[in-house]
Amino acid sequence: MRTYHVAIAGATGAVGAELLRLLETREFPLESLRLLASERSAGRSLAFRGRSHRVELLSEDSFRGIDIAFFSAGGSRSRQFAPPAVAAGALVIDNSSAFRMDPAVPLVIPEINAADIRDHRGIIANPNCSTIVLLMAIAPLRNLAPVRRIVASTYQAASGAGAQAMQELLDQTHETLHERPIVPRVFPHPIAFNLFSHNTAIDETGYNEEERKMIFESRKILHDPALRITATCIRVPVVRAHSESVNIEFAPGRRPSVDAIRTALAEFPGVALVDDRQANHFPMPIEASGRDEVLVGRIRPDLSNEDAIDLFLSGDQILKGAALNAIQIAEAWMRMKG
Amino acid sequence: MRTYHVAIAGATGAVGAELLRLLETREFPLESLRLLASERSAGRSLAFRGRSHRVELLSEDSFRGIDIAFFSAGGSRSRQFAPPAVAAGALVIDNSSAFRMDPAVPLVIPEINAADIRDHRGIIANPNCSTIVLLMAIAPLRNLAPVRRIVASTYQAASGAGAQAMQELLDQTHETLHERPIVPRVFPHPIAFNLFSHNTAIDETGYNEEERKMIFESRKILHDPALRITATCIRVPVVRAHSESVNIEFAPGRRPSVDAIRTALAEFPGVALVDDRQANHFPMPIEASGRDEVLVGRIRPDLSNEDAIDLFLSGDQILKGAALNAIQIAEAWMRMKG
Repeated sequence: MRTYHVAIAGATGAVGAELLRLLETREFPLESLRLLASERSAGRSLAFRGRSHRVELLSEDSFRGIDIAFFSAGGSRSRQFAPPAVAAGALVIDNSSAFRMDPAVPLVIPEINAADIRDHRGIIANPNCSTIVLLMAIAPLRNLAPVRRIVASTYQAASGAGAQAMQELLDQTHETLHERPIVPRVFPHPIAFNLFSHNTAIDETGYNEEERKMIFESRKILHDPALRITATCIRVPVVRAHSESVNIEFAPGRRPSVDAIRTALAEFPGVALVDDRQANHFPMPIEASGRDEVLVGRIRPDLSNEDAIDLFLSGDQILKGAALNAIQIAEAWMRMKG
Repeated sequence: MRTYHVAIAGATGAVGAELLRLLETREFPLESLRLLASERSAGRSLAFRGRSHRVELLSEDSFRGIDIAFFSAGGSRSRQFAPPAVAAGALVIDNSSAFRMDPAVPLVIPEINAADIRDHRGIIANPNCSTIVLLMAIAPLRNLAPVRRIVASTYQAASGAGAQAMQELLDQTHETLHERPIVPRVFPHPIAFNLFSHNTAIDETGYNEEERKMIFESRKILHDPALRITATCIRVPVVRAHSESVNIEFAPGRRPSVDAIRTALAEFPGVALVDDRQANHFPMPIEASGRDEVLVGRIRPDLSNEDAIDLFLSGDQILKGAALNAIQIAEAWMRMKG
């Protein structure tokens, strides 16, 4: 079996840690591993397969001899260092938003559009976490009937804003329980026992950046530029799994039965059906955390629209929402190369 | 000014505590106050206007001489004790779901349908908390254009399940932060750093009881039996204010402008507009907690439907969602009597 020289840019972040763990547990065919980070974190050491690996400073010269470079160090570092990585011959799998809407860059969820990988010119983009977990529930339904419109409301975990944000949730909660004043540092508003509209910039349409990603990335991944989506993105005091309440409208007269939807979801790779009405057991972030699958349930015909259904889902934001999907892109690419 | 003999059945609960506080702060024209509770809590004393009041055992004989009886002791106690209270001549304002859908019982949000109070036959029902906060945002919009369909996803606080549930959220969170095992007692699932589908029974349609309340109570309050609503009700780790993400579809071609909507909301009594895109400041439960007004914002035209808008709201579940609305019903009734 062929083995690969792999680099991780952003190895010390929350997604970097999961990338390392997945390379280990999935027995990724590694020839070598290079860990990269910016000034703040370079010089640290991380454990991998029982050995200590030193984190090197990310630079334009970091990618000589590298076959696959995972980027998870923010959009500006991707814009700066992905082109030299490609020039050095690496395949870049980028977790930032820098290249996602570039027509020359495939935007891939392997269970849905792995074939798009073939069109890459050196960079493959990993979609936004909220988009990935949404589409893992939408794609199986599109195999049953055309999907016309989606109304999504998110319940997004702190992890989406990084390791420091997860820590802020825990620290702030501790202070709040002890009735001590809190000072928000990572998030603009208190996150302990609170929730707020996603802290990204709002444009003239009134949508924030996270919501625009869900709309435009979904259309690109599904190859459906006419797909109508509205989303309201909300941050909640949950550590690391995103949930979404989703209303899905099918083409007129084409709504599938609940049984057909359950079967399609249960059979779709990467989805786990959690839909037990008797036990009141449906997708929950604490059960989605640490799992590869996106949990989907609360499936029911919409009483307000004869063409629509409602459902609820939870998916690990760091796994399928980021690190796992990136690793799966690399695995699909390796399979295509044969 | 006329004064009234008032009783509170369920005086020791979370809503009872707010009823007491509101009777005090709003200078309710009290002639006397009788505090009632079941065996578990009878005999305790509660402070009111600087004096200690003993809580008596709720019985069929509790209501002699009472003019207004607030009930907040659960549906079964309302069903048992409201009829004898009415027979004794009291006006019952019932916070439970026992009589809400009874055609002979007005279901009232005073800012919206105070006139329905006139039709009472001894009982006036206080709507479900999620319904009240939703309709406080919907009613002003119906003054601008007909509302055809509502898609709501809720972010409901622990308070909706009572004082013990609020305490469970705090205690469980404390245990979780200290990495100690937790045992859910009030809620069926862990609530610390988690969220889950509302813990009420699900019927054959797939909707739970809370969602059905939002649908059917809204139609009754708005006198609009054709109003189409779907709702997904989710419990979140927030102490006492409910939030909702709401998509609202108007009659074809009738969508009002964002400015018209903002003005209508800002001018509506009981609503506060919180909609600052520059500062990323929108309704949040920690800011809604303790406030009489329902906070509404994130108002924007829906990019997926030219007749629809999206918005987000937060309202104190114990205040406008329960105790405040009940007191307002009594105040409106007193004004009508002149």
